[in-house]
Amino acid sequence: MRVRRKHKKKLKVKNTSVNQIPGQVTYVGNKVTEKPTVEIINFDKEKVTREDSNKVNDAFHFKGKDNITWININGLNHTTEIEELGKHYHLHPLIIEDIVNTQQRPKFDDYEDYIFVVVKMLYTDNENEFVNEHLSIVAGEGFVLTFQEADGDVFDGVRERINNTKGRMRSSGSDYLMYALIDAVVDNYFIIIEGLSDKIETLEDSLFTQEVEDDMTQEIQDLKREVLKIRKAIHPLREVINRLENSEHELIDEKTHSYLRDLQDHITQISENIEIYREMIWSLMDMYMTSISNKMNEVMKVLTIMASIFIPLTFMAGIYGMNFEYMPELKFKYGYFYLWGLMITVFLLMIWYFRRKKWL
Amino acid sequence: MRVRRKHKKKLKVKNTSVNQIPGQVTYVGNKVTEKPTVEIINFDKEKVTREDSNKVNDAFHFKGKDNITWININGLNHTTEIEELGKHYHLHPLIIEDIVNTQQRPKFDDYEDYIFVVVKMLYTDNENEFVNEHLSIVAGEGFVLTFQEADGDVFDGVRERINNTKGRMRSSGSDYLMYALIDAVVDNYFIIIEGLSDKIETLEDSLFTQEVEDDMTQEIQDLKREVLKIRKAIHPLREVINRLENSEHELIDEKTHSYLRDLQDHITQISENIEIYREMIWSLMDMYMTSISNKMNEVMKVLTIMASIFIPLTFMAGIYGMNFEYMPELKFKYGYFYLWGLMITVFLLMIWYFRRKKWL
Amino acid sequence: MRVRRKHKKKLKVKNTSVNQIPGQVTYVGNKVTEKPTVEIINFDKEKVTREDSNKVNDAFHFKGKDNITWININGLNHTTEIEELGKHYHLHPLIIEDIVNTQQRPKFDDYEDYIFVVVKMLYTDNENEFVNEHLSIVAGEGFVLTFQEADGDVFDGVRERINNTKGRMRSSGSDYLMYALIDAVVDNYFIIIEGLSDKIETLEDSLFTQEVEDDMTQEIQDLKREVLKIRKAIHPLREVINRLENSEHELIDEKTHSYLRDLQDHITQISENIEIYREMIWSLMDMYMTSISNKMNEVMKVLTIMASIFIPLTFMAGIYGMNFEYMPELKFKYGYFYLWGLMITVFLLMIWYFRRKKWL
Amino acid sequence: MRVRRKHKKKLKVKNTSVNQIPGQVTYVGNKVTEKPTVEIINFDKEKVTREDSNKVNDAFHFKGKDNITWININGLNHTTEIEELGKHYHLHPLIIEDIVNTQQRPKFDDYEDYIFVVVKMLYTDNENEFVNEHLSIVAGEGFVLTFQEADGDVFDGVRERINNTKGRMRSSGSDYLMYALIDAVVDNYFIIIEGLSDKIETLEDSLFTQEVEDDMTQEIQDLKREVLKIRKAIHPLREVINRLENSEHELIDEKTHSYLRDLQDHITQISENIEIYREMIWSLMDMYMTSISNKMNEVMKVLTIMASIFIPLTFMAGIYGMNFEYMPELKFKYGYFYLWGLMITVFLLMIWYFRRKKWL
Amino acid sequence: MRVRRKHKKKLKVKNTSVNQIPGQVTYVGNKVTEKPTVEIINFDKEKVTREDSNKVNDAFHFKGKDNITWININGLNHTTEIEELGKHYHLHPLIIEDIVNTQQRPKFDDYEDYIFVVVKMLYTDNENEFVNEHLSIVAGEGFVLTFQEADGDVFDGVRERINNTKGRMRSSGSDYLMYALIDAVVDNYFIIIEGLSDKIETLEDSLFTQEVEDDMTQEIQDLKREVLKIRKAIHPLREVINRLENSEHELIDEKTHSYLRDLQDHITQISENIEIYREMIWSLMDMYMTSISNKMNEVMKVLTIMASIFIPLTFMAGIYGMNFEYMPELKFKYGYFYLWGLMITVFLLMIWYFRRKKWL
Repeated sequence: MRVRRKHKKKLKVKNTSVNQIPGQVTYVGNKVTEKPTVEIINFDKEKVTREDSNKVNDAFHFKGKDNITWININGLNHTTEIEELGKHYHLHPLIIEDIVNTQQRPKFDDYEDYIFVVVKMLYTDNENEFVNEHLSIVAGEGFVLTFQEADGDVFDGVRERINNTKGRMRSSGSDYLMYALIDAVVDNYFIIIEGLSDKIETLEDSLFTQEVEDDMTQEIQDLKREVLKIRKAIHPLREVINRLENSEHELIDEKTHSYLRDLQDHITQISENIEIYREMIWSLMDMYMTSISNKMNEVMKVLTIMASIFIPLTFMAGIYGMNFEYMPELKFKYGYFYLWGLMITVFLLMIWYFRRKKWL
Repeated sequence: MRVRRKHKKKLKVKNTSVNQIPGQVTYVGNKVTEKPTVEIINFDKEKVTREDSNKVNDAFHFKGKDNITWININGLNHTTEIEELGKHYHLHPLIIEDIVNTQQRPKFDDYEDYIFVVVKMLYTDNENEFVNEHLSIVAGEGFVLTFQEADGDVFDGVRERINNTKGRMRSSGSDYLMYALIDAVVDNYFIIIEGLSDKIETLEDSLFTQEVEDDMTQEIQDLKREVLKIRKAIHPLREVINRLENSEHELIDEKTHSYLRDLQDHITQISENIEIYREMIWSLMDMYMTSISNKMNEVMKVLTIMASIFIPLTFMAGIYGMNFEYMPELKFKYGYFYLWGLMITVFLLMIWYFRRKKWL
Repeated sequence: MRVRRKHKKKLKVKNTSVNQIPGQVTYVGNKVTEKPTVEIINFDKEKVTREDSNKVNDAFHFKGKDNITWININGLNHTTEIEELGKHYHLHPLIIEDIVNTQQRPKFDDYEDYIFVVVKMLYTDNENEFVNEHLSIVAGEGFVLTFQEADGDVFDGVRERINNTKGRMRSSGSDYLMYALIDAVVDNYFIIIEGLSDKIETLEDSLFTQEVEDDMTQEIQDLKREVLKIRKAIHPLREVINRLENSEHELIDEKTHSYLRDLQDHITQISENIEIYREMIWSLMDMYMTSISNKMNEVMKVLTIMASIFIPLTFMAGIYGMNFEYMPELKFKYGYFYLWGLMITVFLLMIWYFRRKKWL
Repeated sequence: MRVRRKHKKKLKVKNTSVNQIPGQVTYVGNKVTEKPTVEIINFDKEKVTREDSNKVNDAFHFKGKDNITWININGLNHTTEIEELGKHYHLHPLIIEDIVNTQQRPKFDDYEDYIFVVVKMLYTDNENEFVNEHLSIVAGEGFVLTFQEADGDVFDGVRERINNTKGRMRSSGSDYLMYALIDAVVDNYFIIIEGLSDKIETLEDSLFTQEVEDDMTQEIQDLKREVLKIRKAIHPLREVINRLENSEHELIDEKTHSYLRDLQDHITQISENIEIYREMIWSLMDMYMTSISNKMNEVMKVLTIMASIFIPLTFMAGIYGMNFEYMPELKFKYGYFYLWGLMITVFLLMIWYFRRKKWL
Repeated sequence: MRVRRKHKKKLKVKNTSVNQIPGQVTYVGNKVTEKPTVEIINFDKEKVTREDSNKVNDAFHFKGKDNITWININGLNHTTEIEELGKHYHLHPLIIEDIVNTQQRPKFDDYEDYIFVVVKMLYTDNENEFVNEHLSIVAGEGFVLTFQEADGDVFDGVRERINNTKGRMRSSGSDYLMYALIDAVVDNYFIIIEGLSDKIETLEDSLFTQEVEDDMTQEIQDLKREVLKIRKAIHPLREVINRLENSEHELIDEKTHSYLRDLQDHITQISENIEIYREMIWSLMDMYMTSISNKMNEVMKVLTIMASIFIPLTFMAGIYGMNFEYMPELKFKYGYFYLWGLMITVFLLMIWYFRRKKWL
């Protein structure tokens, strides 16, 4: 039942936003941290500096022209700090709202001074639970801001590449960093759908080896729900990347466009795989139904064979259990043995009949 | 049976409009109030006045230039009053028709002087019944008219915000008020689809715990119907909001467009959730079918086990119930006990066989 | 079997048109009248005249400039009369062909001097049979021609409105009359789909109350076929009305366009309802399948309970029916009563077991 | 098994074209004639001449200016003759390839001097087998060439109309002849889909009257395959006719365009019917499944009734067949008749119970 | 189980590319060769030379102007060699990445100096396993580069045609060679889908002849997966060929466009066939389910007939096995034979009943 409860939580659309005043900044997710974590990475071609803090305003003095500042904030429940940051970077109020609204779909908006992208970070956490985390990215001239719900992300590869002096990252602008971050998120989708593929195969296997009583429909239904949720995260992302690729925002360099096209290819590939998995899962229910029927067939055969063999024999025994005064066979010396012979003949005929029908 | 009757009423398309003369104003809904309720809220940056009345023409003297008047009329069966109001505000005859035609789909029309929007207000009333109420909104320079079928709506949040001196509402035009009203309606959809999610999960749970005899298909079918009706209300709304967002009507302020884009995002999100719930409900029937088959399997196993064990044993007992004159075993001193031994052996073999097959 | 035969007739596409020479006028329907019925209604703002005739050329002398003449011809098998009329009104040969070809899909064509519209009139006749009648409308400056297969139509409301001196009909042109005719046809679709809704609910109800032996699949299949046919009539009509609405033909007045938009709304609404009914019908088969399985489950339970209780008891009786010489229990004074006690205990245990399993 | 084999042949895509050099003319069909049949019909307003030959070059000397020559070649395996003809009429090499490639989908190509159309001729041959024949039409100024796989076609109606002095055919150009040929092909589709309709109804009927053991799924599956193949032939044809209708090729006269629009209407109508039949066939499998379940239900009821009635009665008889020394009932004078009374009571109770359950 | 494992490998999306730095060249496939195989074919109208090597730089000195060089490299794990070649031919880094990324979908990119096409080579290898090989083609002025994962391809036909002095290949440019290579790949798809068709029919046949216990669902599920994978390879190819056909790249000759249109036709035809096979496979599961139910029906009938005949007879024998002191029938002289007569009558009645029901 624990599993069921978990899904209940996941399926629900939180209605915290209902009757909320438009333009008012309220965090609607359920990951609450005591203090925001602020990670500030500042780099140019020559050097990289990194600073960790719990105060958002530590990020303000880093804004430079020739270098790139990546400010990564964890903890969307600290809405006032995020609003403060928003004011410092002149973010539109609706952006601040979208940053903390974890129900927001993936979206892309280009403003005069910056680009705003919302994506969904999908990963399985330490307890092997499927996590769907809200991630907002703001990229402007010389800075990239990322907003996550909680600690733990998929950006370790990006951090390493920033430290790599010879990498393309160091010589490119904030648009390339933004691309690299989205690419890291999308790359992680591959791991998610691979996990999906494993689950499908485990289910397929167990359909043929486990017992019928197991709660298989529940597992299939849960798998369906998971696929539907992954689709919901990925589907709008295709349009986001497409609009990003076709955007003529001056921030996005010509070279970055090639990388975005590549990214779009990846998203399309993931989408295609999701559709394949979806079809496989949907037909799992049919397979399960068939396997139940097959098993019932087997049960019925055992019953039919046992009953068909012994009911006639019992009838024969019943005949000679009757108490009629005049039953000539009862007087025969070998009557009993003749009957046994007849019974064995009938038995063998039945066996032969069921073998011919391939039921035995 | 009460539930069935209820649905019968809901499913039917009222044909009251058939053979009706086009251009003639006839109320086709089934909520009849004795008197119309007229709620007039008048506000500008400084002050708010509110007046409740039962006469429509009380609303006429409020039309001002620097302030905004929201006139909310409940009771669409009072067609003459509504026509009177329509004349005063120069509404096109077809608009009046649409206001009272509760069968009208969500629509958007822009006229020179005002914007006309029809949406469907979905909510569950006090008796927990799903209500689909027809709501028409006319927004012009300095006034917003709303027409509802009956008392009871989802606008309490909007009323509060009008009373809030510092809110954006007080300093914005009638376009923002119109947006806020539609937003309140859409926010309520989240509650509806959450209720849907609860019903799906309750059904899923009961599929595995309740008895087969229960009228489960009926509940699933009702759920399907409900989803189809919600879709019918929401689907055209996407286009309505889209056209509203892209409208170049002078009434709609540039700032309001951002809010409308936000609203469209919400509608899309609701649509996506509805599609997911739809798929879940459709597969509920499969789950139910499978659970029936599983239960039948269980029934068959019990029968097969009982019959397979006791029919051969009965046969054996039948053999020695025969009255042949010469049956050597009957004379054996321990014949009876030998037979018991044989019977127990057969019994244990059967048990072992069924255990190996995992039927026990 | 009568029902089946009826459907056979309906499903078939009449191949009377095969190997027909294009441009040749042949009636392919199956409603044959002895004489054509010609109804001529002539009206302007002041007066209305009506004349009934059996000769088409009675209609010729009515063509006027300031008044509107509606000529309604019933009986498409009188092809020569229709060709004559066509010549008088300069109708294109292909139009004449479409008028008498009852297989023609709904279509819209605008010619220089007139507009040609084909729609399908759906109604249930006196014997409650679903009728799909071919209706062609030609509207030109000052005249409207309608061609029906047989007597009996849905235009009584229109006739009344023509007689109403103050109605919009009397002051509008032939475009408004054409609109009113199509509107009457579309209004009648609401009645048809309401009948559909009733049939679905009757079937749903009987799924749970009637016996399994009934020919339910046949009824569901017939309902499917009916929905498919209604869709076939309505689907192309959406495009027809759309093209009519967007037509820039000079015959169509600006005001009429608003009414046509309204008409399109109705068609869309009907389409949406049809789709909902379609989904409901399709899932009826699943419901039926499930109800059969449920009933089989019930049957199996009765069998299993009876067999599981009495087969072991019969075995016990069989034991003491054996004729072994030495069976100590047989000698016990209360052996028979002890056995009864044992049997009743086993019986009660079985009852308790089946109750716990909720099979009783 | 003959039926299965037949389908095997049909389903396969012939891979004769694999590893074939592009531009090389190879016949890939399986209808081989010893000699090509060449039918040459030459006509103008005044006279018609017809000549049958086995040599393609007999067709060369007919090319005239004021008359129209229709050259109909049967036997696509005579590729060299076809290439020769192609050279004489300056046909593009790829056209020649398409003419003999029976796997080619319906297509339309307009070249400077002529129009090239490929359609599929569907008909049932003398042995009632479904035939899908490849037909290519080349129409140029004053000539129409048609290429068929074998003798036997659907053009008899066209031939008659050419002989009709007063027909439109004689006074129109080669574009009208081309239209008439395609129209004849399309008209024949109506016969095919009517045959389909008959097969569906025969199957529906037999679902309720025949025995379960019959190979019904095979028939349904074959019907599905047939529908899919007809769709495959018709689907691209819609686009072909559409492009033909919208073509601005100078060969196509203004008047012919009206006829082509009419043709498109027919194609659309056929498509719609095919879709309806498709849905009906797909639901046949459900109907069949349901009918099997219904029959199993009936079988189970017989078993349950027989077993439930006689197993308890047998138990009662078993009781009094026991050999306990002290069984008081055995001594009762009317014990035997009392028992019969009890047994009949039980029997009647069971009958009443099953009647109440409507199983009897 | 070996079969299952095989599929496991195939289904998984290799996540080797996860956390890979964009722009870094890493081979993600699983075919590793020790040394790359380089095949260099150089030809013009007069002569053809062919050279096999294991070093990529042997290919460099062949670049000529009046002749065409086809360099075919097998072994994508030799990334450094491929990068070296890329540098020599000025290939964009992202192209090199796509060449070695076997997960890359079919794509088309035109650069200033060359065209880049990725397709999937589908074939069954010697062990009859379905192989999905990544193939990249770069075509520039005077050269065509092809990159394959391993030895073994579908280009033998192309090689032959290059050797044919009079063929079109020798007189055309590198665009025609590129076309011929893609055409060879597409031609092979026909073989793949023909294999699919065979498998479907084998399954269909075995559904009616084999036993139920066989793991049929597994085979059907595997077939579904195969179809989904073929679709995934073919679907994007349609767009690739379409873009190639519409490309205005100067490399592609006017004549080649006709051939590309032809190729597109082939792809469309393959797609249509795949869709048909898909529908056939999806309905196989229904067929299988039905066949299981049919078999269960048969089993149930045997049980019902045996039980219904012998249970009443056993009851009758049981009656006269009772030990009542006063049972008049037991004293009748021919009581025993009368009973036999009754039993045989009952037996024959049952047989007649089951025959009438067509169960026998």
